[in-house]
Amino acid sequence: MWRYLKRLLIGKPLKTTDEGGQQLTKFKALALLSSDALSSVAYGTEQITAVLVVLSAAATWYALPAAGIVLILLFAITMSYRQIIHAYPSGGGAYVVATKNWGTGTGLVAGGSLLVDYMLTVAVSVTSGTEAITSAVPFLREYSVAISIVIVLFIMTLNLRGMRESASFLTVPVYLFIVMLVMMISWGLFNIATGRVQYNAAAPVGSFVPGMSLLLFLKAFSAGSSSLTGVEAISNAVPNFKKPKRKNAANTLALMAVLLGLFFASVTFLSYYLGVMPNNDETVLSQIGMAVFGHGILYYLLQLATAMILAVAANTGFSAFPILAYNLAKDKFMPHMFMDRGDRLAYSNGIISLAVGAIVLISIFHGQTSRLIPLYAVGVFVPFTLSQSGMIIHWFRTRDRNWILNSLVNLLGTVISFLLVVFLFLLHFDTVWPYLLIMPVLLYAFYKIHEHYGIVAAQLRLSEEAELHDYAGSTVIVLVSSVTHVTTGAINYARSIGDYVIAMHVSFDENPKKEHETAKEFKESFPDVRFVDLHSSYRSVPAPVLRFCDVMAKNSAQKNFTTTVLVPQFVPRKPWQNILHNQTSLRLRAALNSRENIIVATYSYHLKK
Amino acid sequence: MWRYLKRLLIGKPLKTTDEGGQQLTKFKALALLSSDALSSVAYGTEQITAVLVVLSAAATWYALPAAGIVLILLFAITMSYRQIIHAYPSGGGAYVVATKNWGTGTGLVAGGSLLVDYMLTVAVSVTSGTEAITSAVPFLREYSVAISIVIVLFIMTLNLRGMRESASFLTVPVYLFIVMLVMMISWGLFNIATGRVQYNAAAPVGSFVPGMSLLLFLKAFSAGSSSLTGVEAISNAVPNFKKPKRKNAANTLALMAVLLGLFFASVTFLSYYLGVMPNNDETVLSQIGMAVFGHGILYYLLQLATAMILAVAANTGFSAFPILAYNLAKDKFMPHMFMDRGDRLAYSNGIISLAVGAIVLISIFHGQTSRLIPLYAVGVFVPFTLSQSGMIIHWFRTRDRNWILNSLVNLLGTVISFLLVVFLFLLHFDTVWPYLLIMPVLLYAFYKIHEHYGIVAAQLRLSEEAELHDYAGSTVIVLVSSVTHVTTGAINYARSIGDYVIAMHVSFDENPKKEHETAKEFKESFPDVRFVDLHSSYRSVPAPVLRFCDVMAKNSAQKNFTTTVLVPQFVPRKPWQNILHNQTSLRLRAALNSRENIIVATYSYHLKK
Repeated sequence: MWRYLKRLLIGKPLKTTDEGGQQLTKFKALALLSSDALSSVAYGTEQITAVLVVLSAAATWYALPAAGIVLILLFAITMSYRQIIHAYPSGGGAYVVATKNWGTGTGLVAGGSLLVDYMLTVAVSVTSGTEAITSAVPFLREYSVAISIVIVLFIMTLNLRGMRESASFLTVPVYLFIVMLVMMISWGLFNIATGRVQYNAAAPVGSFVPGMSLLLFLKAFSAGSSSLTGVEAISNAVPNFKKPKRKNAANTLALMAVLLGLFFASVTFLSYYLGVMPNNDETVLSQIGMAVFGHGILYYLLQLATAMILAVAANTGFSAFPILAYNLAKDKFMPHMFMDRGDRLAYSNGIISLAVGAIVLISIFHGQTSRLIPLYAVGVFVPFTLSQSGMIIHWFRTRDRNWILNSLVNLLGTVISFLLVVFLFLLHFDTVWPYLLIMPVLLYAFYKIHEHYGIVAAQLRLSEEAELHDYAGSTVIVLVSSVTHVTTGAINYARSIGDYVIAMHVSFDENPKKEHETAKEFKESFPDVRFVDLHSSYRSVPAPVLRFCDVMAKNSAQKNFTTTVLVPQFVPRKPWQNILHNQTSLRLRAALNSRENIIVATYSYHLKK
Repeated sequence: MWRYLKRLLIGKPLKTTDEGGQQLTKFKALALLSSDALSSVAYGTEQITAVLVVLSAAATWYALPAAGIVLILLFAITMSYRQIIHAYPSGGGAYVVATKNWGTGTGLVAGGSLLVDYMLTVAVSVTSGTEAITSAVPFLREYSVAISIVIVLFIMTLNLRGMRESASFLTVPVYLFIVMLVMMISWGLFNIATGRVQYNAAAPVGSFVPGMSLLLFLKAFSAGSSSLTGVEAISNAVPNFKKPKRKNAANTLALMAVLLGLFFASVTFLSYYLGVMPNNDETVLSQIGMAVFGHGILYYLLQLATAMILAVAANTGFSAFPILAYNLAKDKFMPHMFMDRGDRLAYSNGIISLAVGAIVLISIFHGQTSRLIPLYAVGVFVPFTLSQSGMIIHWFRTRDRNWILNSLVNLLGTVISFLLVVFLFLLHFDTVWPYLLIMPVLLYAFYKIHEHYGIVAAQLRLSEEAELHDYAGSTVIVLVSSVTHVTTGAINYARSIGDYVIAMHVSFDENPKKEHETAKEFKESFPDVRFVDLHSSYRSVPAPVLRFCDVMAKNSAQKNFTTTVLVPQFVPRKPWQNILHNQTSLRLRAALNSRENIIVATYSYHLKK
C-alpha cells in the first residue's frame, strides 16, 4: 500500500544516467528561478509602509524615495550577479564563491546563512501566499496555518518527483502573475491618467511630516530591501540551463531584474496614490487590486496568481536547499545522508528536512511570519556580501580582461550588501537577533561533523593486507520469552551456526507461579538444549541479559569462540501491528550493540495471519 | 550522561517487591485524589456565567439556581459512588464496573471515554492553572502555552518517579488551596455581613430578564456540571488506601463532596454578589479574590494555590490513565507495552503517552482549552452513566441486604448522568461533536488489537514436543561498503559461523572510475574470500542486495544450509554521531527482515575516537 502510494505520488524511479535530460530553457528558468524575487512584490512595499505608518499616515509618502533606493540597489546587485554567472558557470552559489575565494570558514558562514534562509524563504512565501488567499476569502482566515502546511507538503511532493516536472508545472502561475500585474498596473495607471481613480494619498510628496527622522527612513528602506531577496537564485543554477548556459542565465537574470523593478516601483506608486494602509486582515497588494479591478473576477485572479507565485517562490527554496546541503555534505560538513538521491534523482533528505523546518517555523509563528522578513533579509545579505567580496578577490587573482572594472562592480555590490546588513542589525535588532544565536551553533555543528568524519576515516583505513584470524568455533545464545514455534525456528538456526547453543529466559517476581513455567515448558519441548533462567528483581530485561552475555562472551573468547546473541522478533503482516510487538527485542538489540565482542542476530518470525 | 540524567530525574530503580509500601493515608488520599474535583471550583462557576452573560449581565443571577441544581447532583452522585466503593473494593473504575455488569462492549465505551477524558483533564487543568498565573501576572500571558507545557513535563517527571513520593509532595498545594478558599469565603461573607463589601450584583435574584429561556438555563447548568468531574477518582483508587480500605475511601469521598459543595456554592454566591463578569484576561476566581483580599499578598497566595491545585488535578489524570491503560492492555485491547513498568514501578509508557497527548491538545488550542470543557464533561458522564447503571445490574444479581434501596440510589445517579449527557449533546453540540468521531475510532482500534493478539497466540502455540531440524551448514553473506578494519572484523566473524562465506558490494553509475576500486582493494586485502560486485542503476542499495540474497538463500536451502546476512554498522562514541552513520545499514536491515529464510546479523564496529 505504502509502496503503491509512493509510486503514485513520487513517480517511477529514474536511472542515474537519466539525469542529462533535466535541463531548463530560458522560459522555464524564468518561472522556476525568478519566482522568489518577483513574488517579493507581494510583501516588499508592505514592509516599507508598515514601518512608516507607525509614525503617521502622512509619513507613508516616504515609501516612494525608499523604493527608489531599493531600485538602485536592485540594478547594482543584478550587475554583480551577472559577473558571478560568467565567472562560475558550474553554479556559483555563495557557498562555493566564498569558499573558493575567502576560504572554508567564510564559505561556511555563507552556506549556513543560506540553509537557514531557504527555510525562511519557504515559510515566508507560503504564509504570504496564504495571506493572499485569506485576503480574498476572509472566512478561511482561521485555517491559515493548516492551509500553509498543506501547501508546503504539496510543494515537497512535487520536488520529490524531480525537478523538471516541477518546472513545466510551475511556469503557469509565474506567467499568470506577470500577466495579472501588468494588467493591474496598466489599468491602474490608465485610470489615474484619465482621472477615473481618485487621488487619495495620505499626504503629497515632499510634505513635512512631524517626527520623521533619517533613522526611520533607513529603517523603512532596509525593511523594503527584502524585495531584493531571491536575485541570487539564477546565478546558483547556471548548470541547469540549456546551452549556452552562461548567456541564457545572464539574460534571464536581466529580464527578471527589469520585471521586478517595474513591478516594485508601480506597486509602491499605486499604494501611495490610492492611500493604501497596511493592516492585519488584508494585504496591500489585495487592497490595490480591489481598488483597481473592483470586486470582480480579475481581482480574484490577481489574488490566485499571487498565492500561486508565492508557492512557486517557496519552491525556489526546495530547488536550492538540497543542492547546498549536498555540497556541504560532500565537503563533510553535513551528514552523508544529504548526498543520497531518491528514486527520482532528487535529494530526498534535503527536501524533507526543508519541509519539516518550514512547517515548524509556520507552526511556531502561527502563520504570521512577516516578523521573520528582516531576519530573512539578513540571511540573504550576509552571503551576498561574502560572495560579492569573494568576487573581488577572484578578479584580483585571475586578472582577466576588464578585471578592474569587474572588481569595481562587485565592490559596489559588496558595499551595498554590507550596508544593508549593518542597517538591518542596527534598526531591526528586535527581529534579527536570532541570527547571532543560530550561526555560531551551525558553524560549531559543521566543524564537529567535519572533524568526526575525519577521525573515523583515519581509524578505519586499512594499511596493508588484512590479517585474518581463525576462530575455533562459535557460541550462540538464543533469547526465549515464551516457548512457541518461534523458539523452534530460532533453535534450529542457532544449531546451524553455533558449536555451543544455549537458550536464555528472564523471569520476574510479579507472577511467582508463572516463573518456572517457561523453564518447564522449554525442557519438555527441547530436552537436548541447555537452558538458563535469569531472574530480574527490577522488571528490566536488558540489564540481566547483558550481564549474562558478557560472562558468556568472556568464556567464549577464552576458548577462541565468537559470541552471537539471537533475538527473535515478529514481522507482522501489517505495519501498524508493529506497535503491538517487539518493544523488548528492540531495547535488547540496542543494549547488546554496545558490546563489540557480541554479534546480534535477528530471527524474524513472519506472522502468517 | 543520559543515564545519569535519568537517575537524577526519575530516581533509583525500585524492586518489584517494594510495591507493598505505596499505600495512601486518608490525609494524603484527599490531596492526591480529590484535587480534580476541588479544583473545578476554579472554572465551574465561570462556565455557568459565561453562558448566561452572552444574553445579558442581568441574566447572571440565574447562576445561583443553576449552581443549586449542580449541588443536588453532586449529593446524588456522591451517594452512588460510595456504593461502588463498597461493592468493588479492588478498584471499581467505570471500565471494570461496566465490563463486569454490562459486558465487554459497554466496558470499552466507558474505558475509551475515560482514556480521552484523562488527556482532557490534564489539558484543561494545566491551562486553567496557567490562567490563574497569568491573571495575577499579566505580562506572562504571551508565554502561556510554554508555561502549560513546562507544567505538564514537570508533572510527568514526578509521576515517572513513582506515586507515593508524588503524594507526599502534593498534599501541600491541595491543603493550601483549601485554606485559601476557606479564608476567602469567610472573609468575603464576613465583609458582606458587616457591609464592608458593596452589593454590586447586576440584577436582583428573581428579576425578570428579557430573552431568558429554559433552554439557556439548561445550557448554563449543563456547562456548570463540569464541576462534578473528578468525583469518580476516589472510587477507582480504593486498593491504594490504607486498611480499612473501603471505609477510608468512603469517608474521604464524603469529605471531598462536602468541601466541593461548600466551595462551589460560596464562589457562585460571591461572584453574583460582587457582580463579577467572565472575561478573557482574568478568571472569575481571580476577580473575586481581588475584590475580597485587595491587591495584596493574600490575593497572590490564592492565585498560587489555584494554579498549584490545578497542577495536582492534572496529576489525577497521571495516576488514573496508566492504570486504565494497564487494565486495557492486560485484557489485550491495548498494546502490551502499556503493561511495562519502569524503574520506579510506574507504568512509564502510559505516563508518557498521556503527557504527549495533553501537550498536543494544549498546542492545538493554543492554551485556550476552556472550549474543551463540555467535551470533557461528556467524556466523564458517559462512563458515569454506564458504571452507575452497571451497579443496578450488580445489585439485582447479588441481592445483598438493602439491594432495593441501593439500586434506587444508583438509579438516581444513572438518570442524572444520562440526562447530563443528553443536555450536553443537545445544547453544546458545537463543542461536543468530536466525541462522536473519537469513540468509534477508539472502539475499532480496541477490537482490532484484541483480534490481532488472539490470532498471534493461536499461530504460535506449540502443541507437542518440538521437532528439531538438522541443517547441513550455513552460508554467510558479508556486506561491504568500503574496505576497512570493519571489513576485516566482519569477515573473521563470518568465517567462525559460516561454512560458505561470500562478500558483497553494491556499486553505482555515478562515479565510473571508482566503481571497480572497491573490488580491487578487496581482492588485494582478502585474496581468499569470494567477492561479488552488484551494480545498481537506481542508486538504491536495498533492492539489488535483496535480489541477490534471495538467490543465495534459495541455493542454500537446496544444500540444507541456513542463510545469514551480516550487516556491519558503526557504534559511534557519542549518540548524536549516529545521525552521521548507518543510514544505509538501517534500511538494509529493514528490507532483509522481510525475508523469513534470511537471518540478519549486525556486526557492530565501535569507533574508538
